[in-house]
Amino acid sequence: MDEHEQPRHRVVVIGAGFGGLFATKALKNAPVDVTLINGTAYHLFQPLLYQVATGILSEGEIAPPIREVLKRQKNAKTLLGTATHIDPVAKRVDVVAPGVAYSVEYDSLIVAAGASQSYFGKNEFAEFAPGMKSIDDALELRGRIFGAFELAEIETDPAAIDRLLTFVVVGAGPTGVEMAGQIAELAHRHLPGQYHNIDPRQARIILVDALPTVLSTFGDHLSTEALRQLHKLGVEVELSTKVVDVDESGIEVETDNGRRRIESSTKIWAAGVAAPALSVQLAQATGAETDRAGRLKVNPDTTVPGHPEIYAVGDMMALDQLPGVAQVAIQSGRHAAGQIKKRLAGQPTGQPFKYFDKGSLATISRFSAVASVGRFHFAGLLGWLLWLVVHLLYLVGFKNRVTAVLHWFVSFIGRGRSERVATFQQVFARRALQEYQEKLP
Amino acid sequence: MDEHEQPRHRVVVIGAGFGGLFATKALKNAPVDVTLINGTAYHLFQPLLYQVATGILSEGEIAPPIREVLKRQKNAKTLLGTATHIDPVAKRVDVVAPGVAYSVEYDSLIVAAGASQSYFGKNEFAEFAPGMKSIDDALELRGRIFGAFELAEIETDPAAIDRLLTFVVVGAGPTGVEMAGQIAELAHRHLPGQYHNIDPRQARIILVDALPTVLSTFGDHLSTEALRQLHKLGVEVELSTKVVDVDESGIEVETDNGRRRIESSTKIWAAGVAAPALSVQLAQATGAETDRAGRLKVNPDTTVPGHPEIYAVGDMMALDQLPGVAQVAIQSGRHAAGQIKKRLAGQPTGQPFKYFDKGSLATISRFSAVASVGRFHFAGLLGWLLWLVVHLLYLVGFKNRVTAVLHWFVSFIGRGRSERVATFQQVFARRALQEYQEKLP
Repeated sequence: MDEHEQPRHRVVVIGAGFGGLFATKALKNAPVDVTLINGTAYHLFQPLLYQVATGILSEGEIAPPIREVLKRQKNAKTLLGTATHIDPVAKRVDVVAPGVAYSVEYDSLIVAAGASQSYFGKNEFAEFAPGMKSIDDALELRGRIFGAFELAEIETDPAAIDRLLTFVVVGAGPTGVEMAGQIAELAHRHLPGQYHNIDPRQARIILVDALPTVLSTFGDHLSTEALRQLHKLGVEVELSTKVVDVDESGIEVETDNGRRRIESSTKIWAAGVAAPALSVQLAQATGAETDRAGRLKVNPDTTVPGHPEIYAVGDMMALDQLPGVAQVAIQSGRHAAGQIKKRLAGQPTGQPFKYFDKGSLATISRFSAVASVGRFHFAGLLGWLLWLVVHLLYLVGFKNRVTAVLHWFVSFIGRGRSERVATFQQVFARRALQEYQEKLP
Repeated sequence: MDEHEQPRHRVVVIGAGFGGLFATKALKNAPVDVTLINGTAYHLFQPLLYQVATGILSEGEIAPPIREVLKRQKNAKTLLGTATHIDPVAKRVDVVAPGVAYSVEYDSLIVAAGASQSYFGKNEFAEFAPGMKSIDDALELRGRIFGAFELAEIETDPAAIDRLLTFVVVGAGPTGVEMAGQIAELAHRHLPGQYHNIDPRQARIILVDALPTVLSTFGDHLSTEALRQLHKLGVEVELSTKVVDVDESGIEVETDNGRRRIESSTKIWAAGVAAPALSVQLAQATGAETDRAGRLKVNPDTTVPGHPEIYAVGDMMALDQLPGVAQVAIQSGRHAAGQIKKRLAGQPTGQPFKYFDKGSLATISRFSAVASVGRFHFAGLLGWLLWLVVHLLYLVGFKNRVTAVLHWFVSFIGRGRSERVATFQQVFARRALQEYQEKLP
């Protein structure tokens, strides 16, 4: 074989979330062939899912097709499918897609399959309180939130109307805070005047968390500021409150004062994540350990112990108690890609991954956010402008089209809730989908 | 009872499509209380469904919430639900919504429940060749169209790849022509360069019709021009060709030369409409006749024979062989509203509905359309600009927000196909939805 025809080093990346996609992009000029495997054809900008669930952005605006993002990267190809099994001896990944099953061989493997919602062992809650992890989740919640107001309008029983107009968000991290804020804005500012039989301002939005503060990872100052803004928006915040049961018509909570039931048609689960089944399978196959959430305990350089050719990044990796945020995924994905490049260049590898904390951001409502950057804290409009700039810059890096950026900008600035469609398919599909996912190997 | 407290004349409008919505709007300043009943919370701009199915517009952009459209009309209220039964003696409409059933009484009734897809008695085709009547249809087709390219990329059997890259559109009216044109544009102009294993340009787009011309109602000149533009885009047009069978992997057609099978994964049904079950029920209850498509044979003033208080408009009415287009629905809806206003003002009623034909428009691809206005014909860029102006003006009339118009404008002008998300729910829901609809009374 001519040396020019030597097969190139094959890198397989599982997952096109922040970790997998940025790892792939970081390999752009490397002498490798990258195969990126993802269960959907799009990258998901997860931190904005709440905007889809509340009618501000369309699903396409937060889910650019992976092929479009990677159009100019000639050494990367994208394949649709869910990786179900990794064989670290044969260096092979088994994948299933609708109607097709196939395998891909690798020389280096980056596992970035993300995390799924955790109901802390109570998976039966999922049907009544959808999570906030996928486009399907967001569209389901969009249908439920706007549908609750529609059904309240035609309902005559006062107790049923109250139940329909009570929204409970479980989990006061960024996602939960943002959801609660947006539903409050919807009910108190946007929808009034559009109904005849009900007043949307009567809606109760309740944010529940087992911890004693909201946004507990943001520090005391921003935590207090976020709580103040939530109160101003009319959100009822119930802290040190544990959810013990969820059913179709309500939720049961427990505090130091005992148990209590909240009647509520629409519940949203924004608490807790778990590593996917693939993490457990890979741990078994390699003898690696996992933490309580099922994440792989990796070496400081993000490799799986005993397998210098397998990297686990982002939400799948348990390392230094790093938080499950986009920046950790992006930076660890890039670190893994850098290690592969070094190895191929014959340079020493094994450098530990060092996370650079760029800060935290959470919007409470339009024109109002909290942000911490290093020692600096921002709240209100200034925080929101920072949030806007960060998100628009991120988008510009992704979509090359002026029109797409314009779309986004218009959606962020505008007062509109133009995306309010509920499909009939949602009503029937959720349970069937769950059954399918449980059947996946 | 004080005369100021006299109950106002109650108008019930069934359906918030073009007919029902414009009838409601025309009653804005009339001394009536209008109740508008619709199965979804949004008005659907049906002529642009094909843009949702091919990733150009988001569903929210063609489906404004009815309440938002009617926000400033104090005498109209909107109720979610499907009208299942009309009692012309008790003057009552029975309605079902998720989990609730209710009735509404009327003094005047405008029935504008539209039309559904007709498979000419072969409803089993629906599963394999979705229609183009609802948001659910469009999203289902969006998932199938973009999904076909994704599955072709991971498929290894050449016959399966060919089948996945063959798209058959049944029906060469405006909807079918626009769908075929957009899929061709997608395959030949937009997607090339994004795949590694397949070349999207290999895709075949086949437009089938039993008639000998495309856009047969547009006249010979535009018909020929549209055919020329379709050929230029690479669409294979098979005329005088009847569809005799549809299954999961293909379609069987019949011409004068006999039967033939076309292997195709993605089939789209854009041929034939039928009146809804409500039309048949109302005919039975009033003794009115229906035409072959199940539409009500109405009096020249759009009232149902023997019931001067019941109007049937738009796609539900059989009158003067008027076509099932938006303008007929809008104008007949306004005519019915005008008749009610006259009756309440003590003026003579019974004036026949006269349709004013404003012309026909169909886009073949971006920057290219055919249009006929009176004796004038436009094709190519001029036709497309006319199409753009008409649609933007229509939208301005609907949405009051500058941001919404900006969004639309950007989408029409841009090259983007930013709305490409397929949900998992679609895979499981279609059959369940059909079963539900068949169970509706």
